Amino acid sequence: MKVGMFQTPFLRPERTPKQVFDWAVRQAIHADRIGFSEYWVGEHGTLDWEAIPSPELVIAAAAAQTSQIKFGPLAHLLPYHHPATLAVQTAWLSQVLEGRYMLGVATGAYPTDAALRGITDMSKNHAMMLEAIDIMERVWTGEEFQHEGQFWKAGHPKVDPSHPPRDVRPWGGKMQMAMTGLSAPSPSIGFAGTHGFIPASVYAGNTFLRSHFETYREKMREAGRESDRSAHRVVRDVIVADTDEEARKLAIEGIGHAWMSYIKPTYERFGVLKGLLHDPDMDPSKVDAEYLAEHVWITGSPDTVARKMEGWFDELGGAFGTLLIYSHDYIDAPEAWERSMDLLVNEVAPRFNTVAEKEAA
Amino acid sequence: MKVGMFQTPFLRPERTPKQVFDWAVRQAIHADRIGFSEYWVGEHGTLDWEAIPSPELVIAAAAAQTSQIKFGPLAHLLPYHHPATLAVQTAWLSQVLEGRYMLGVATGAYPTDAALRGITDMSKNHAMMLEAIDIMERVWTGEEFQHEGQFWKAGHPKVDPSHPPRDVRPWGGKMQMAMTGLSAPSPSIGFAGTHGFIPASVYAGNTFLRSHFETYREKMREAGRESDRSAHRVVRDVIVADTDEEARKLAIEGIGHAWMSYIKPTYERFGVLKGLLHDPDMDPSKVDAEYLAEHVWITGSPDTVARKMEGWFDELGGAFGTLLIYSHDYIDAPEAWERSMDLLVNEVAPRFNTVAEKEAA
Repeated sequence: MKVGMFQTPFLRPERTPKQVFDWAVRQAIHADRIGFSEYWVGEHGTLDWEAIPSPELVIAAAAAQTSQIKFGPLAHLLPYHHPATLAVQTAWLSQVLEGRYMLGVATGAYPTDAALRGITDMSKNHAMMLEAIDIMERVWTGEEFQHEGQFWKAGHPKVDPSHPPRDVRPWGGKMQMAMTGLSAPSPSIGFAGTHGFIPASVYAGNTFLRSHFETYREKMREAGRESDRSAHRVVRDVIVADTDEEARKLAIEGIGHAWMSYIKPTYERFGVLKGLLHDPDMDPSKVDAEYLAEHVWITGSPDTVARKMEGWFDELGGAFGTLLIYSHDYIDAPEAWERSMDLLVNEVAPRFNTVAEKEAA
Repeated sequence: MKVGMFQTPFLRPERTPKQVFDWAVRQAIHADRIGFSEYWVGEHGTLDWEAIPSPELVIAAAAAQTSQIKFGPLAHLLPYHHPATLAVQTAWLSQVLEGRYMLGVATGAYPTDAALRGITDMSKNHAMMLEAIDIMERVWTGEEFQHEGQFWKAGHPKVDPSHPPRDVRPWGGKMQMAMTGLSAPSPSIGFAGTHGFIPASVYAGNTFLRSHFETYREKMREAGRESDRSAHRVVRDVIVADTDEEARKLAIEGIGHAWMSYIKPTYERFGVLKGLLHDPDMDPSKVDAEYLAEHVWITGSPDTVARKMEGWFDELGGAFGTLLIYSHDYIDAPEAWERSMDLLVNEVAPRFNTVAEKEAA
């Protein structure tokens, strides 16, 4: 199993933009050094808790200071960019990174991000995303086209041989794209299967996750592609320390604040908190950091975490390709957190290599 | 006089995106270290010779590795971005850089860049730029607004105190903006004066430059601001070495290729080559690298360059605030070029401090 990071970022709103940026770059460098396979960065224009408006700036800053890790926005919110401008930018970044780049895309879920672009009715965001993908894919061919769509115009002029335009194709000629899903059934995960995008499931309980796997498998099959769960990314909080008690403490004192202040209310708003509950009849207001440490996050020593993950995979009917952990606000004392990342990727993950390879076969 | 760099970039089209990116970041770090005051980066989606589509990626990458230099795109082409998205991104970058940021804006001059966004008639680009500036300035206030314009929609919703949005204001509450001018009379330089933007004149001969100074002074006066030539940036190639002969050789062998292959044809296309000619009746096809080294670039030992610049300032009726030199393609042997930068800012520029301060007074 591979391990990656999702830098949404979950940093306290009082952090300055420079702190957010420096932390995101630092985490990328650390993740690269210890063997994380990928590093995704969120995009939000207005949110106080997810305060990176331009993931590409973090990726560009980390590019020269990393060597093997792959980067990607997760996700560029397509209704909020001119697609041709974004196509050229992302292709260039994939070239600068010599292929260490994947492009997550989404419609945008937050009303304030939409309002910033004058969108009060978000019902057209999906259609905007589809048109944007179409435009970007045509830009990336480098061939002549004219597009006058519902939302944008774009094109490549006929090539004048005396002034050849720059090659705007992505590294390797093709952009690897990705899409996240949270609720179930997830149209985004279905879309990923239909179009050969990477599916990334944000953990909201095993029922949802099994639904995502099923949807992805079905849509891949319908599209005539071999289903392969090793392509699947799952986002879940995992904290490792030398002992169970240390891991639990590190989690509750670090991750706990973000969950109680921001993530739990967000799950409630999106109507997916119930999927996380061990007992579905439980009163959601009783969900506190201790509950989360027990039932939602995976915490413990390397042995404990490995055992818990094995149990998790059994419930899911097998492993998946890449575990993505969120980055959290350990700015003031990063060492234990960075060691947790290290233990996860170097002590826990290698125990699941066989499973992951079997799945991939 | 201050010295800055304009990374358009003038790199041979066969350079890879990674070479372009790495060179642009390396030049920024060197410029910061030796005392350049600012570093501007161009934006072009399709040009083979000016191959940075997203100046913000270079700036973000250089941010953490520099300490005093100021950065700016020169320029973000406003018709080609969603203004609210660009406003939030640039404000965030100004915060990440803790004020070491200025924002150059322009309408876009190249038809292939326009065609990429489906624009075949560029006559509306100026109106698009005006609307974009208006939107960005409203986004930067952080206050509630709704905008439904000719080209875009944007807004800030009424603040919900239970979910306060992120502070999207630029560092210090105000964005310092800039605009370039090439031809004369220059509407862009006039616009800069009217709106309190930094004027940056691309050198196309002293007649044009005097016209820019005059336009800027007039428009500043009309807007009720004190005219101050120290705000004026002038872009011109200056090469310094230990001896005149070395400087001349470094220039002809380095800068010469970009000028003959790209810059001279571009000046011809924009109808401004004649301004550079020493003798206006000269046949433009006779302009070769030797001619440029003699009459257009300033080359020589520190003493020679200082003498030439004094003569230049006399013709202009005084100095200006900041000399911007283009960055050129010295990727294969950067040492002599980086030493030229060093000699310019540390051996030549200090001789003009008195003049510049007098102008500023």
